[in-house]
Amino acid sequence: MNSRLSLFPVSAEINQAGGLVIGGCDTVGLAGRYGTPLYVIDELSIRRRCREFREEFGSRYADTTVVFASKALAMPALVRILKEEGMGLDVVSGGEIYIAEAAGFPMDAVYFHGNNKSPEELKMALDKRVGRIVVDGLDELETLNRLAGENGHIPDILLRITPGVAAHTHSHITTGVEGSKFGFPMFMAGDAILKAMAADSLNLVGLHIHIGSLINETDPYLKSIDVVLDLAAEVKVRAGFELKELNVGGGYGEAYTLDDEVPPVSYYAEAITRRITDRCRALGLALPALVLEPGRSIVARAGVALYRAGFIKDVGSLRYVAVDGGMADNIRTALYEARYEAVLANRMNEPDTAPVTIAGRFCESGDILVRDVRLPEVKTGDVVAIPVCGAYCIPLSNNYNAVPRPAVVMVADGVDRVVRRRESHQDLIRNDVF
Amino acid sequence: MNSRLSLFPVSAEINQAGGLVIGGCDTVGLAGRYGTPLYVIDELSIRRRCREFREEFGSRYADTTVVFASKALAMPALVRILKEEGMGLDVVSGGEIYIAEAAGFPMDAVYFHGNNKSPEELKMALDKRVGRIVVDGLDELETLNRLAGENGHIPDILLRITPGVAAHTHSHITTGVEGSKFGFPMFMAGDAILKAMAADSLNLVGLHIHIGSLINETDPYLKSIDVVLDLAAEVKVRAGFELKELNVGGGYGEAYTLDDEVPPVSYYAEAITRRITDRCRALGLALPALVLEPGRSIVARAGVALYRAGFIKDVGSLRYVAVDGGMADNIRTALYEARYEAVLANRMNEPDTAPVTIAGRFCESGDILVRDVRLPEVKTGDVVAIPVCGAYCIPLSNNYNAVPRPAVVMVADGVDRVVRRRESHQDLIRNDVF
Repeated sequence: MNSRLSLFPVSAEINQAGGLVIGGCDTVGLAGRYGTPLYVIDELSIRRRCREFREEFGSRYADTTVVFASKALAMPALVRILKEEGMGLDVVSGGEIYIAEAAGFPMDAVYFHGNNKSPEELKMALDKRVGRIVVDGLDELETLNRLAGENGHIPDILLRITPGVAAHTHSHITTGVEGSKFGFPMFMAGDAILKAMAADSLNLVGLHIHIGSLINETDPYLKSIDVVLDLAAEVKVRAGFELKELNVGGGYGEAYTLDDEVPPVSYYAEAITRRITDRCRALGLALPALVLEPGRSIVARAGVALYRAGFIKDVGSLRYVAVDGGMADNIRTALYEARYEAVLANRMNEPDTAPVTIAGRFCESGDILVRDVRLPEVKTGDVVAIPVCGAYCIPLSNNYNAVPRPAVVMVADGVDRVVRRRESHQDLIRNDVF
Repeated sequence: MNSRLSLFPVSAEINQAGGLVIGGCDTVGLAGRYGTPLYVIDELSIRRRCREFREEFGSRYADTTVVFASKALAMPALVRILKEEGMGLDVVSGGEIYIAEAAGFPMDAVYFHGNNKSPEELKMALDKRVGRIVVDGLDELETLNRLAGENGHIPDILLRITPGVAAHTHSHITTGVEGSKFGFPMFMAGDAILKAMAADSLNLVGLHIHIGSLINETDPYLKSIDVVLDLAAEVKVRAGFELKELNVGGGYGEAYTLDDEVPPVSYYAEAITRRITDRCRALGLALPALVLEPGRSIVARAGVALYRAGFIKDVGSLRYVAVDGGMADNIRTALYEARYEAVLANRMNEPDTAPVTIAGRFCESGDILVRDVRLPEVKTGDVVAIPVCGAYCIPLSNNYNAVPRPAVVMVADGVDRVVRRRESHQDLIRNDVF
């Protein structure tokens, strides 16, 4: 039994040949058939996580909507699954609206976010009648009100509030980072609500908060819920504002390595729903509809990256295993100093030996995928599998070093299907004119 | 006169309307015609830099070849210009070989690098008869020897040496980073040369070193030249090795902001050529052919990124100006904490006011392009121009947030031409199957 199996998709198992199986499909066979690097997405893992979020929150709070944050992985094949699972979709660009529509996603379940939506994108959102537009600032409020007036459709909007106060109570930092590029800072939030209420062509239904990423505790959520509910109560007294919808965003933790301790969804659900219920009661507010926006939590563990081991190099006590991908298909290690585990997909049952460093193929010293990971003695040709690669790898993938982007395969019940074809060399210059 | 003009391409000037002109083309007009974000590349700047490198080194050292490192910007339109300028081409993948060939670049002037070239890529390099293959490790040496034997073509090769000793003499770090993923560490370099000399199907012509990026002093170059020439002399005595070619790589400094002090090419040329000449004489070595591999130095300053200012937001004393691009088209700020300057291309002659922060449009807090830059009072619709964007922006550009990648326009003598078309929404899912 390979202890790292717990980081892989829920369907992961080991076959009699010692190979890693996902969704009933032998990953060694997939690597051979489709080539490497290859991203394998487990459909069951995605569906399970959608249901877990919907059930854990929904069983505790009746009016719950769970919305997937597309930026973690925007793909038509995924959007279709999300639709079947009754999820909403958080989009942040015209391109993500386009993908949602191409996949037949209902536009009224789309939430449009972003700090700098262009007039064209706002018009597109109005034309398509997306369910909610989450307004990020005063400029946008005015622009959207004008565009909605011209369009004749009054959109439901939320205001994104930056509950900075919550973080400040925990530190003595009084200068420095005064605010994020996102949302309305607290000092202008009340006025912004009044302005939105007064806007002729906008229907303000609620408030949105998003406090960060990979948050393994509930405290920041609870603090920001307090702040935003207090704000709602204050503006209710002041101007009759009714908070019909509260969107608490995403940012839930995810385990990338065996060292990561991440609470279950039920832990977030219990704390968040209880706090909203208690605080609303204390403040005399009707319970708002609750919206959550997990992205990484839905897809991260569903994805596995497969690479082929190439040249192996000993530099003193350090052994480099070079693979045929790296920072162009997974920039998270270089960009966020992300940590990963790895296994040999073709030799899951063999004992580990001394640690190796898995280096990418790209011409940059920083292109290291995993440092100091213990594997069986690696040979050229082995299939290296890295778990928890379903979020923020494919969306940030690029053509550095003129390397085509990998194929993506969806697996379920022993059936695999290519949901994104590998790029060709021709694709690299298909928009070039020379 | 805008002091920041010195960071822009050599052809940059300001027209009577106060607009930024590059290559005789009004950038405000280009932004209007082709949309934003837009990357503008000045042909004259590229040609000038190619000539400067060739002349400064060539006038001091007869047998000099200057090779462009494609990874800084791999585009067919650029490759054509490099060919006209008599440059060689450093490639690091089958894709970069493909681009070189598509643009009609002579294969015998191509240098193939990389720490993990695949067997397919090595076969491609043999089939195409690329000029040099720079071998990065023992595994590759054996693989290439075998493949060359099968192919029947004996390639000219260099060995990439990691002259780690040079850095160590300056510090007391004796453990920790024992070595790079690239090249042969010194302790195995001598044996590697013997193995390469003995390889039936390989013709060893020289050694390659590359010591890093953005190096603003000559000392590390001189130290590594000493190390590698001493090595060559030692193996000459030991086994009759003749160093016919010495490739000193790239890594020359580049000014991104007005604070950066970077020596001219002549400074590197004088120090490097003198050291090679002196050291070879002292060691009794014949002067090898000299090869240089600048990438960033050739194209960085030639490129300008144009954005349209969108929403403007005051958060306390901080003013955010959001633009319609960001970390997906230029990940350097997020990835390397790179610093940039900026100007308003449509109001070059207006006085600066309080500093602003230029934020990207992407849904990530780290998506900030330029911090604390003084500009005239920015209005929505202004054209923000960021200089020194010709290297490592376009190659690392991605479709994060499902935003299509920008168009690239080449300008020269008042004529503009699109050399890469802007991606469409359709392009985002053209390889998707659903």
